[in-house]
Amino acid sequence: MTMKIKKARGTRDFLPEEMWFRDFVEKKIIEVFETFGYRKIMIPTFEHSTLFKIKSGEEILEHMYTFKDKGGRELCLRPEATASVCRMFAEEMRGEKKPLRLYYSCPMFRYEEPQRGRYREFWQIGIELIGPKNEYSDAEVISLASLALKNLGITHKLEINHIGILRNLLRDLGVDQKLQSRIMTLIDKKDPSLEDFLKKNVKKDWEKILELIQLRGGKEILARATELLSDHKSCLLSIEELKRILDILDYIEIEYEVDMSIARGLEYYTGMVFEIKAEELGSQSQICGGGRYDSLIEILCNEKVPAVGFAFGFDRVVEVVKLKGLNFPEKRLDILVVPVSEEERKDAIKLVNSLRNNFIGKLSVTLELMNRSLRKALEYANSIKARYVIIVGKRDLEKGKVTIKNMDLGKEEKINLEEITNFFKEA
Amino acid sequence: MTMKIKKARGTRDFLPEEMWFRDFVEKKIIEVFETFGYRKIMIPTFEHSTLFKIKSGEEILEHMYTFKDKGGRELCLRPEATASVCRMFAEEMRGEKKPLRLYYSCPMFRYEEPQRGRYREFWQIGIELIGPKNEYSDAEVISLASLALKNLGITHKLEINHIGILRNLLRDLGVDQKLQSRIMTLIDKKDPSLEDFLKKNVKKDWEKILELIQLRGGKEILARATELLSDHKSCLLSIEELKRILDILDYIEIEYEVDMSIARGLEYYTGMVFEIKAEELGSQSQICGGGRYDSLIEILCNEKVPAVGFAFGFDRVVEVVKLKGLNFPEKRLDILVVPVSEEERKDAIKLVNSLRNNFIGKLSVTLELMNRSLRKALEYANSIKARYVIIVGKRDLEKGKVTIKNMDLGKEEKINLEEITNFFKEA
Repeated sequence: MTMKIKKARGTRDFLPEEMWFRDFVEKKIIEVFETFGYRKIMIPTFEHSTLFKIKSGEEILEHMYTFKDKGGRELCLRPEATASVCRMFAEEMRGEKKPLRLYYSCPMFRYEEPQRGRYREFWQIGIELIGPKNEYSDAEVISLASLALKNLGITHKLEINHIGILRNLLRDLGVDQKLQSRIMTLIDKKDPSLEDFLKKNVKKDWEKILELIQLRGGKEILARATELLSDHKSCLLSIEELKRILDILDYIEIEYEVDMSIARGLEYYTGMVFEIKAEELGSQSQICGGGRYDSLIEILCNEKVPAVGFAFGFDRVVEVVKLKGLNFPEKRLDILVVPVSEEERKDAIKLVNSLRNNFIGKLSVTLELMNRSLRKALEYANSIKARYVIIVGKRDLEKGKVTIKNMDLGKEEKINLEEITNFFKEA
Repeated sequence: MTMKIKKARGTRDFLPEEMWFRDFVEKKIIEVFETFGYRKIMIPTFEHSTLFKIKSGEEILEHMYTFKDKGGRELCLRPEATASVCRMFAEEMRGEKKPLRLYYSCPMFRYEEPQRGRYREFWQIGIELIGPKNEYSDAEVISLASLALKNLGITHKLEINHIGILRNLLRDLGVDQKLQSRIMTLIDKKDPSLEDFLKKNVKKDWEKILELIQLRGGKEILARATELLSDHKSCLLSIEELKRILDILDYIEIEYEVDMSIARGLEYYTGMVFEIKAEELGSQSQICGGGRYDSLIEILCNEKVPAVGFAFGFDRVVEVVKLKGLNFPEKRLDILVVPVSEEERKDAIKLVNSLRNNFIGKLSVTLELMNRSLRKALEYANSIKARYVIIVGKRDLEKGKVTIKNMDLGKEEKINLEEITNFFKEA
């Protein structure tokens, strides 16, 4: 009986070469996170669905993998990390000294139609900075995202906004919370029906919204926004906040573009928001998104704790690095040990065993296990790009020796068994 | 509105210190895997449920997290990795040169009553050696498990058996497949109702089963098993196979105990099986289980591909390492930069920025973000065990200097700004 079973739609297997590459990219990102003092945490794969219903927004709610456990509780696979991190903070980290600098790297799950660069199980690597509320912390988070990409050689474009400008304008124009969310989603998706929707649903001055979200450019844009929104005091405060962040970005030399149409799909943002795009990717060019969320933790534990963070779409980052053809160290087998015949098998096993014990974490050593002849074994070693083959033959063994073949140079030499460790220490 | 939402039952959050420790333990295991030439793969978090219905056994089926997606497909969170790795091999790796040495490290999911050392989301790190069928590969896998634990300083006990001995005996005694599984489960769980069950369901010679599973000890046990099963030729072949594996373990000096009652909870095993226990843990002392499964891949792709593997119960391994009080490098913040007043904030940010750029992956550097006074900041640095505090004050800055305080020595010195990079290169 054969049962052909495929992987579930939208999921992926990562084979060794791909995995090695992904791990390499992950390490390059994480080393920057750690340089900034961020520390790794792990959140559960599933949560109570209610957690994401609070503030994650339409986009996410529509695409959650929910299921009931045998106790009737509604659970769901995490669609994003920020809500989980806040839940974790509220449940277990309230007593810790602030700021908390945290990072995570794990798969997320959204039930969407799979397409190029979009999967149902996809990886995010992100950070959360919990505690401080000032322009320095916003700038830290942005510069972290930027330096992590720079560390991978990714040229990228940072687009920044302050969600308070738009939110406060909508509130001033009498738009209620629910309608605000709808409008924010339309803006986020650059939905062409936005204008009609505004006309129909916003009583006065809806043109201001359209004008505002068309503002895009350098810091000078802030002056135009200030002019446009001069009657809306709370908007002006948000613009001021944004300006202070941009000032810092200027003097640590991080380039940006202000884009007043950035609304973000997630509803918990309250302040600065940003997105990063990589030119190399076409329509799915966004590789990072984040911003400030000062009220999410309060909802979960009734304590006002501001926070700011971002997440990389890790699969897309990997894609860009591949497209750029970044050099990365190849993973090769160091030593293949081949007994010439079954007679030398025992000595070969002992040799492999002692090499492995002596070079833990330094060399990779394997024994030929498929009954290949010496010729076939050398062909195999060549095809998998092994660095060395150690040939264990009877005549050599009688003299206490084995033959080591350097596969890169095609050079063979006979070495005393007791000198093998030294040989590879120097190799 | 406050909504207290807790993590789902049986799941865990890992805070930074715990995570750092777990990562350290994982690295120590993985470095041994890689020394043996194993390469990392990643399998999906969920699969079609049918995959685990083939051969995973009662124990797992009863406790799976299954759910339907919107297309009506029955999916489940992976309860274990081997079936997924075989599915992955059948689907994508059949063309690769053998042997394939693969490892994974990821959470598994079983809907069980949580108790000490048992969670609904739990981590496994394991390997699969796909392709070869001989005693050398069985011995390689066992020695890999053993060396990985040794590398963590864990004293452990290896118990080994050959599932063919018991399976063939049951078949010879006329026990059908379904009943075999039931009996294997009872044996695996050391269920006291076993004797009654055998009496009732096995027509003849059921006492032999009881006698067999009581055999336990060194290699000499094999002689007693041979005697007991002298009428059962296929059992004798399995005993022979086991003996050849033990011979290799003997000459690479791996200690073991033969235990003829090891039945394993998973149904796909066909040959050698083993379990490893750690003395430090009480009733939940098993930290590793594995064995040979030569027919699972054939079911999935109609090609006979033998394989052998094991998995560590990673949470329990971490627990043992903790109990043993293993020394591991502490994770500390290297540098906290503190501006004496807001006036020096800009210079402090620039300094932090340049240190981070110059020491990626080498130092961790943070800026004081919580408006702490210098005194409070030093207290804070002390409490989080930061190594250095750089104090950025007006008077120092006027001379182009900052003050660096070594927190371990309590020593301060003034350093020229342009010499800071060199200072930390040497520190």
